[in-house]
Amino acid sequence: MGTRIVATNLSVPPDVETSHQVAQKTGRTAEWIADVTGVRSRHVSPCMKDPAVLAAQAARPLIATHGAPDCVIYCGAIPRQMLPDLSVFVHRELRLKATPAFSVNMACLSFVSALITADALIQRGLYRRVLLCVAELASRGRNFNEPESASLLGDGAAAVLIEHVDGPSCIRHSHLETWSEGADLAGLRGGGTMREPDDPETKADDHRFFMLGDQLLRVTVPRLRTFLDKFIKDCGVEQENIQLIVPHQPSGPALRLLTRWGFEESRVINIISRYGNCVAASMPMALATASSEGRLHRGDNVLLLGTAAGISLGAAMLVW
Amino acid sequence: MGTRIVATNLSVPPDVETSHQVAQKTGRTAEWIADVTGVRSRHVSPCMKDPAVLAAQAARPLIATHGAPDCVIYCGAIPRQMLPDLSVFVHRELRLKATPAFSVNMACLSFVSALITADALIQRGLYRRVLLCVAELASRGRNFNEPESASLLGDGAAAVLIEHVDGPSCIRHSHLETWSEGADLAGLRGGGTMREPDDPETKADDHRFFMLGDQLLRVTVPRLRTFLDKFIKDCGVEQENIQLIVPHQPSGPALRLLTRWGFEESRVINIISRYGNCVAASMPMALATASSEGRLHRGDNVLLLGTAAGISLGAAMLVW
Repeated sequence: MGTRIVATNLSVPPDVETSHQVAQKTGRTAEWIADVTGVRSRHVSPCMKDPAVLAAQAARPLIATHGAPDCVIYCGAIPRQMLPDLSVFVHRELRLKATPAFSVNMACLSFVSALITADALIQRGLYRRVLLCVAELASRGRNFNEPESASLLGDGAAAVLIEHVDGPSCIRHSHLETWSEGADLAGLRGGGTMREPDDPETKADDHRFFMLGDQLLRVTVPRLRTFLDKFIKDCGVEQENIQLIVPHQPSGPALRLLTRWGFEESRVINIISRYGNCVAASMPMALATASSEGRLHRGDNVLLLGTAAGISLGAAMLVW
Repeated sequence: MGTRIVATNLSVPPDVETSHQVAQKTGRTAEWIADVTGVRSRHVSPCMKDPAVLAAQAARPLIATHGAPDCVIYCGAIPRQMLPDLSVFVHRELRLKATPAFSVNMACLSFVSALITADALIQRGLYRRVLLCVAELASRGRNFNEPESASLLGDGAAAVLIEHVDGPSCIRHSHLETWSEGADLAGLRGGGTMREPDDPETKADDHRFFMLGDQLLRVTVPRLRTFLDKFIKDCGVEQENIQLIVPHQPSGPALRLLTRWGFEESRVINIISRYGNCVAASMPMALATASSEGRLHRGDNVLLLGTAAGISLGAAMLVW
């Protein structure tokens, strides 16, 4: 018995900002932005506050085609509000009744950890069709005094249906790691008990993204290389037999590491130029793009791979 | 093959507020507070901002006795900051290396959903010993203009180790439901994209708790009754053969419902009077109390039961 992803979809808010527009706000050029981040345009949400609306927009066509899920797992990083978690607001948008809804959060790796969770819950016999969904309105939290992260971030949503199946589709292998010495290298410091709005130590920038890019790369890249080598070995799959790599989309340079590490560029889904880094939505958006482009075939080895603020590393090898 | 809870612990911040003290802040009497909420004292955290410190304090003795976990699931509701999630900060306090850390959030039912998740991950063969931990500094978000919720809330933390076992201990049955028409009946509206600090619509009270108590009861109680009857039937266990009920601790009156519904008072763990409602920490704190009082015996049927903002209902029947 296994599980398989039966359908994927992505959704973005209508407004688009080009790197020329972002350049004016950050005091850098569009060329600098393309060079450092790989992003040429990103969707933004100046008029949209509720990620649940966007997540439901991504999920609705899947439910219309495949029927209602028996469990909803929200897998985003940026909150709508402190309490309750976002899953119930997506649930309400979808007009579900009784279906349980909860959230799994591992920053940018929330989709992978939620997928592993959904697979385990299905294998345990608790559910048969789980809806994973996420919407990140990351553009709202951009700090234009920090040109790199402000140029990287974009908005987007994705939904994925995973089902019980008797065929060979499955998660062949998965692995997650957290190295919390990097906990303060990227994130959003506000919105919780550490920086309450009426605390004199709280600053306006605390509800905006921060990223210590260089330090983050120094901590993450060597660990990711070791992680990936061991992961592929543990999978028992030769690297050339991985038909498709669906990575998180941290930045253009980060994605180029994969080709440097021996993955053919044509096998790596790269949507950073068009959408930017959409936090936890990036990976399922990349998966939905691969699907709509007809690049996913049953039986293929599909590698999901990413890094997350925290910092965490994660991968799942799917037999599609 | 099953799973069993091998150890539990609770931790609270040192400061205590009696209902006499809370009465002065809310304009009600201590008698009114005891009557409406059942709370006589609660731990509070005027000098503590970081829930990770408290969660780690609860977890440390378990790790010292039983060894390090191979996975950490944080299962609290109130955030430390918007991104990354709290799990990595607990991970850092515990000086763990590589061990994956992520969060499961189902508001006050986060512990039950995380326990079900941990059980499934263990049964799937991914981990052997999972640390569940939570710390809620709920007192920091009290709105003293809302006497009922301000009198209810208290601070606390708990940690629980769940392990793979070859014996009969297991989660015999579990069930979760979400009814999102109640999504706006209790929570914290700030700290996310809906009420950003620089949004003119954001009010100071948005980072404090709100609770529409009467409406919440009207929506929740009838559903909980139906839920519970069906749950016990589906478990295949007679109500009198449930040796212990470990409920979430929403309020004194809510806990009295259980005796009205046929559970002997002596079998219901009730810690509301001493600790108040500690949000997602309440249920594992009640479990840790049951454990330290020697009330948990291998082979017993132990019912975890609760409600959550959202609203959600949840239960798990453990063979201890």
